[in-house]
Formats: sequence, C-alpha cells, structure tokens
Amino acid sequence: MTDPRLTALARSLPATVPFVGPEAQERARGRPFAARIGANENVFGPSPRAIAAMRDAAAEIWRYGDPESHDLRHALARHHGVPPDCIVVGEGIDGLLGYLVRLIVAPGDAVVTSAGAYPTFGYHVAGYGGRLLTVPYARDHEDPQALIAASRAAGAKLTYLANPDNPMGTWHDAETILAAIAAVPSGGLLVLDEAYVEFAPEGTAPPLDPSDPRVIRLRTFSKAYGMAGARVGYAIGPAALIAAFERVRNHFGMNRAAQAGALAALEDAPWLAHVCDEVARARGRIARIAAETGLTAIPSAANFVAVDCGGDGALARRVLVELAAQDIFVRMPFVAPQDRAIRISCGTEADLDRLAAALPAALKRARATD
Amino acid sequence: MTDPRLTALARSLPATVPFVGPEAQERARGRPFAARIGANENVFGPSPRAIAAMRDAAAEIWRYGDPESHDLRHALARHHGVPPDCIVVGEGIDGLLGYLVRLIVAPGDAVVTSAGAYPTFGYHVAGYGGRLLTVPYARDHEDPQALIAASRAAGAKLTYLANPDNPMGTWHDAETILAAIAAVPSGGLLVLDEAYVEFAPEGTAPPLDPSDPRVIRLRTFSKAYGMAGARVGYAIGPAALIAAFERVRNHFGMNRAAQAGALAALEDAPWLAHVCDEVARARGRIARIAAETGLTAIPSAANFVAVDCGGDGALARRVLVELAAQDIFVRMPFVAPQDRAIRISCGTEADLDRLAAALPAALKRARATD
Repeated sequence: MTDPRLTALARSLPATVPFVGPEAQERARGRPFAARIGANENVFGPSPRAIAAMRDAAAEIWRYGDPESHDLRHALARHHGVPPDCIVVGEGIDGLLGYLVRLIVAPGDAVVTSAGAYPTFGYHVAGYGGRLLTVPYARDHEDPQALIAASRAAGAKLTYLANPDNPMGTWHDAETILAAIAAVPSGGLLVLDEAYVEFAPEGTAPPLDPSDPRVIRLRTFSKAYGMAGARVGYAIGPAALIAAFERVRNHFGMNRAAQAGALAALEDAPWLAHVCDEVARARGRIARIAAETGLTAIPSAANFVAVDCGGDGALARRVLVELAAQDIFVRMPFVAPQDRAIRISCGTEADLDRLAAALPAALKRARATD
Repeated sequence: MTDPRLTALARSLPATVPFVGPEAQERARGRPFAARIGANENVFGPSPRAIAAMRDAAAEIWRYGDPESHDLRHALARHHGVPPDCIVVGEGIDGLLGYLVRLIVAPGDAVVTSAGAYPTFGYHVAGYGGRLLTVPYARDHEDPQALIAASRAAGAKLTYLANPDNPMGTWHDAETILAAIAAVPSGGLLVLDEAYVEFAPEGTAPPLDPSDPRVIRLRTFSKAYGMAGARVGYAIGPAALIAAFERVRNHFGMNRAAQAGALAALEDAPWLAHVCDEVARARGRIARIAAETGLTAIPSAANFVAVDCGGDGALARRVLVELAAQDIFVRMPFVAPQDRAIRISCGTEADLDRLAAALPAALKRARATD
C-alpha cells in the first residue's frame, strides 16, 4: 500500500532498491558467508592509523562532527593541490550523487549514463524526476564518445562516467577522459566517478582542474582507503557548483569519528600503497583462477574483476547461486551483455583459496542446469 | 556566483545554513572553547558499552553497514513494542526530516511550524519548495492548537511540533499532544519531533501507535544516548509511510560503527537513567545560576535551559558574545520574543562552575553597552 499523501513524484518511484546487502542475504540463508567478496569492499582494511583515530574518537562521539569538515577538507585540498572551496565532503559518493542530482536535475531533465553502469546514480535521477537515457557499453567499456554524443543530442544536464568503471573494472586513459570533458555540451556537466581510481595505473586520472566548469570529480574513502562503513566521500569541482551543495546538504550529517578516520587515512600513504599492491596481487590471482576454470577475466583497474562465464546472464546468475551455496558472496552486472560475467572483489588469500576451490564445481553445476 | 546549471528551485535557495558549528567559531576566534554547552550535546557521553562497540567496529569499517539496519531496527521495535516495519533508521533526525519532506512536500505545498522552532525543518521545507507558514509561540511554548488550526486553514501537508521544544525546552503533556493528533486535518501529517523526550517527565510522550496514519514520531541517539557525532536517528510511523522512505533514502548511508554503537546504547538502560539524572541535576544548577544572577530560567524538560536575560534579542546576543569571550559556547533562539533568552546546554560540573563565574560579569557588560 502506498501512502496517499506522497507527492506525485514519490508515488511514481519504485519501492525496489539498487542493492541488497550481504547481511540481508545471510539472514535469508540462515548462515554467514565465509568469503565476503561481492560488494567491492576492501578486505585489506583501513590504515591502522585510521582505526586508531576512529577508536580515539569513540568516546568523543557525544560531540557533533564539524559540519564544515574543515580539517579533512583542507587536508584533501593540500593532498590534491586544489583550493578548499572546490571540495565538498559528504556521506559517501552515493550521498553526494543525491545532492548533485537534486541541485541540477529538475523533473523531465535529460541525464545520460551507460546501460548497466552504477545503478545508484540512476536511482537518484529517477528520485528527482530526471529522464535517464542510456548508451550501451562498447566491448565492456563505458563509451565516452557515445555518452557525450547522446548528451549533446538530448541536451543532457548531467553525463555520468565512472573511470575505472563499476561493474566491469575497465578504464580509459586520461587523454580519452580529457577529450570527453572537452566535448561536454554547453550547460552540461560530466559526473566523473573516480571511486576506484587509486587502484588504476598512472595516467588514468586526468589532472585535477577545478577551474573547469564542465566536470565534477567524485572520490571516496570507501575503496582504496578501506572505509566503506564510515561513509566519507568527496567531490572536487568548480567553486560555484561546490558552494551550491551548502544549499541542500545535511550539514551535520558527517559522522565525527569517520571524519577523524579519513583524515588519518589520507596521511598514511604507505598503507595506501600496500593496499594497492595487495589488490593488484589479488586481481592477478582472480584472473589465474578464472583461467584455470576455463573462463576469461576482463582486465580491471579496480579492486574487483569481472569474470566472463562464457554464457548469458542466466548462466552467470546460476554461478552466483552456486558460489553462495558454498558461502561465497559475489555479485554480477545487471544488464546484458555485461551480465554474462560475475564480479569478484579482491579478497584475502583465504577468500581466494575458497573461490579457487569452489568455482570449478559451481560452474559445472551451473552449466548442468542449462 | 551561482552556477547557472542549478534548477530554478536550487537557484532560489539561500546560501546560508541553519547553524554554524562551534569548531568554525573556534577557528574564527583562534582558540577553543573551555565549555561547550551550546549545541545541546550530551556532555555525559554515550554508554561505555556503546563506546566499546564503536571501538570494536573500527577495524571492521571496511565493510559497508547493513543497509537495512536490521539489528538496530529490530531492537528498537522490541524496545518500543512496535512492528519493525514501522521504524526507519536514518542519518539523524535531520536526515530523516529531509527524506520526509521530500516524500510529502511538492513545490507550493503548505507546511506549518512555529516561528522560531527547529530551523533545520524549515531548511528542508524550503529546499523542496514548500510554503512554510508559522504560528507564534504561546508563553514560550509551541502552541499545538494554533498549529493545527493553521494547518487546517492552509490544508497543510505537514505540521511540525517538537515535544519537548527546542530552543525553549518547554513541553506539553501527552493528553495535549493526543488532542493535537486527533485534530490533524485529513491528508495531513503531524511531525512529532521527540529528540529530547527521554529527558522529559513521565506522561510527556503519548503511547506509540504506528497504526495511526496522522503522526510520525522522530527519535534520536544524539541527545539522551550521547551520540550526536554518530548520526543515528529513527522514525516511528505507519508502515505505508515508513516503507516510502525506501524510495528515496541513501540506503548505504548509515555508518557501520554508529549502528553497532546505537544498538549497544539502547541495551544500556542504567546508563540512560544515569544520564537523565545528571541532566536533571544540571538543569537545576543552571536555574540556580540564573537566579543568583537575577535572571529567570524557563522550566525545561530537555538537556538545556533557556535563560531569560530580561531584555530583548540584542541584549541576549551581547550576553552570548560576552560568554564567548570567556570561552563559553552557548546559543540562543533565533526569533522574538524567544530571543530574549540564551540557551544553555546541560554541562558538567566544571562547565557550570565556569558559567557561574562568568555570567554575572557577562550580563553586566552586556547591559552596559545597551
């Protein structure tokens, strides 16, 4: 039953949600997963300095967090060499995407993304009444030229592009991204989601240039910094756009301990390097496990690997179910043809030992019920 | 400069924010406050069990929090004797108010509140294009009958009432609130903000009845539970309305450690009782300090006391400035005639010793510059 007092827009929204959490699956299964490698979490964890900072902040949690996230924002500004007023800190990239869409997209406004790209962006666009147009992936890559072309054709307010991409892990080099930025139509904005960029090769992220009004960059402490549960993301963009977030954001919405943890994490460059090494090693291991099972790992610049199961979405979904039966939590792309793959997050050695042991039989059973 | 790509609504919004944090004032002053008794934070802190739970969760912060807040929500359901599907957990009452306004208020819809009531509610109403109507306080109390009458006259979608009230600390008994609920106009909803209700006398909160479609109740771990920096609030209301939050909320927005802390805090009833005792003692002390200075403390059922400075808003503001000069952070109501008072949060003995020492001279200087 829908509450009749909802706005017409709210009534029109689906009650479904983009992602079901692994905890909900565990409750439905009646037992926990042994390998949690489905949500692109960073199993190598946050910097010990970040953990210590959060532990220290626990007793002080009676204080509201600084609504300006001053110390973190200024540290990020120094880290990236951009002015502090070109950065806004928010409740993860998800939260920032919500604010951004709210600021820019009026009901009926066109927005462009890729078919099968990060669904939470589409969730927000629908939530504010935007008109979401999609272009297909090109050989498992988001297609910047096609995105911009569609954006120009539709007069889109926003164009979403993740680099590296989620769920496929593929990426473009900085030159390709710069060409896309240069082609953004007048009045438009490229939403460049760089949640995974710390894992990517040098030359993936274009230089940060917040004087460019055509692009806003989204970064997070959820992935390489290992703090998904803390909810700390940030956006870097032109000062006038960044200032607009003050008009709509939940000013006291940032957890105090999370701010302290993010600040400490940012200052621990060796830990970040260590995590990136571990992730690269795990990506290689996932690719070898795939190859040993006769499957193809799609090259990835993120902390997960999409593994082509060699069939259609139904086959991949059965593989997922079979892995879950062996207590391994993984996810898969939502849209064809990318949904022929399963998406495996970089796990610990133990996680991937379990995957290596389980995958051949899971695939066999999945094929048997074809 | 305003970004020209903003929606017409976003362009119309003020760039000002409801509250400036004490940290921003400290940065401007160049030195910290010695007594932080301005933001209605709970200086007595969270339960030691909540602190321990948050510390334990720090190393696991690489995991997203459960997007359903299942364990906390079910514990709250047991605690309050209501079904779990009548509770939604969110990023503080501020965050939940934002979602609620978004769900119910379309541009131009009428909304009723009191002139000088909690400004963050009005911030959200403006943010979604609602038309905010206000009624005056009656002898420093919000006026439920007048609120409902205005709501009926305007066909308001939402009527906001805080019990106990912030910033005055005054309250109504449950019978008065029940009468207001019974008079909510058809198609309307009473937003009953009970952020401070754990501090109030027995008989302040009406029984919870989520089968009643006319009211949604807002509660928080920020005040009596001492976890303002964690950002955990919840709403209790009719299942159809609560379900609607799933359409717009930031599903993965809840900090994982905060969820664990709130769950532990809820289970520590003795600590809650201890905090309420300390708060009651501090309220008494603030009233005595006021009386010794020749001022009148307005009776309060919250963790703060509004102290009538005996003049107008300008005088109270000067008292505030004088107290800040002595490193005491307090706030004051925004709107006349309530702004003749300063609002002092319940501090530690040391905080209130400092207040007692500073207030007479602060008042004298404030009056001298009249």
